[in-house]
Amino acid sequence: MTFAKNCAGAMILAAMCLPAQAQFAKPEDAIKYRKASFTVMSAHFSRLGAMANGRAPYDAKAAADNADVVATLSKLPWAAFGEGTDKGDTRAKPEIWKEAAKYKDAADKMQAEIMKLNTAAKAGNIDALKVAFGPAAASCKACHDNFRKD
Amino acid sequence: MTFAKNCAGAMILAAMCLPAQAQFAKPEDAIKYRKASFTVMSAHFSRLGAMANGRAPYDAKAAADNADVVATLSKLPWAAFGEGTDKGDTRAKPEIWKEAAKYKDAADKMQAEIMKLNTAAKAGNIDALKVAFGPAAASCKACHDNFRKD
Repeated sequence: MTFAKNCAGAMILAAMCLPAQAQFAKPEDAIKYRKASFTVMSAHFSRLGAMANGRAPYDAKAAADNADVVATLSKLPWAAFGEGTDKGDTRAKPEIWKEAAKYKDAADKMQAEIMKLNTAAKAGNIDALKVAFGPAAASCKACHDNFRKD
Repeated sequence: MTFAKNCAGAMILAAMCLPAQAQFAKPEDAIKYRKASFTVMSAHFSRLGAMANGRAPYDAKAAADNADVVATLSKLPWAAFGEGTDKGDTRAKPEIWKEAAKYKDAADKMQAEIMKLNTAAKAGNIDALKVAFGPAAASCKACHDNFRKD
């Protein structure tokens, strides 16, 4: 049972990591890369949040551009959670690997919400952006709460 | 003369930084962001290099995907070289601000080469990729040589 569960987890993680195969020479390169991708994503996501929450003036072009960057970046970090990247300069919780299916669901959910946000940001009106921003932010937070150390 | 030169430099830098206006709360946020954008760009650029130089098998889809990421990222770091970001956790040389026109030329040149590389990566054949990769890599190196500390 535990063996089967571990195997299932390993297979899910392997599937997530497949595109990354041999893409990072060392685990620390993968960790640096995934943190960098989250840093860039977060900066542009925050700019959308500032518009959605009225802290910055709405600018349709800037919204579309920022959402494009977020959409591109949202696909990247997952491939960098491969073997040996659970320790070192990282706040990743062990649950990422122990509960791989749950982690993959959270990552998929986030990417789906970001795609909706990207579509909304192209609509050219702030109401669409406001509607899509909340669920997207919640999908980020869910992962941080469950899979990232404080 | 010096005043005029400084003004010209300041205006160039201001133009480069305009999109970033108020986008970073603190200089260290800007530094972290620009380093992160270079880290992500470099990882994907290296994958194109591995294919172009025969260290990895050519994969047309992977080449196109990696080039897309590089193209998106290549536009980002420049807005994060604003005032106060010349010191701290950075290898940026003072020449970035002292020779702002030269720095802008180097940044523009790099982005132009990356756009050519992106087009080449979409051509679906390794020869196009090989032709475009060299000049793109040279444009990265030129900036590192002149504007980044070892």
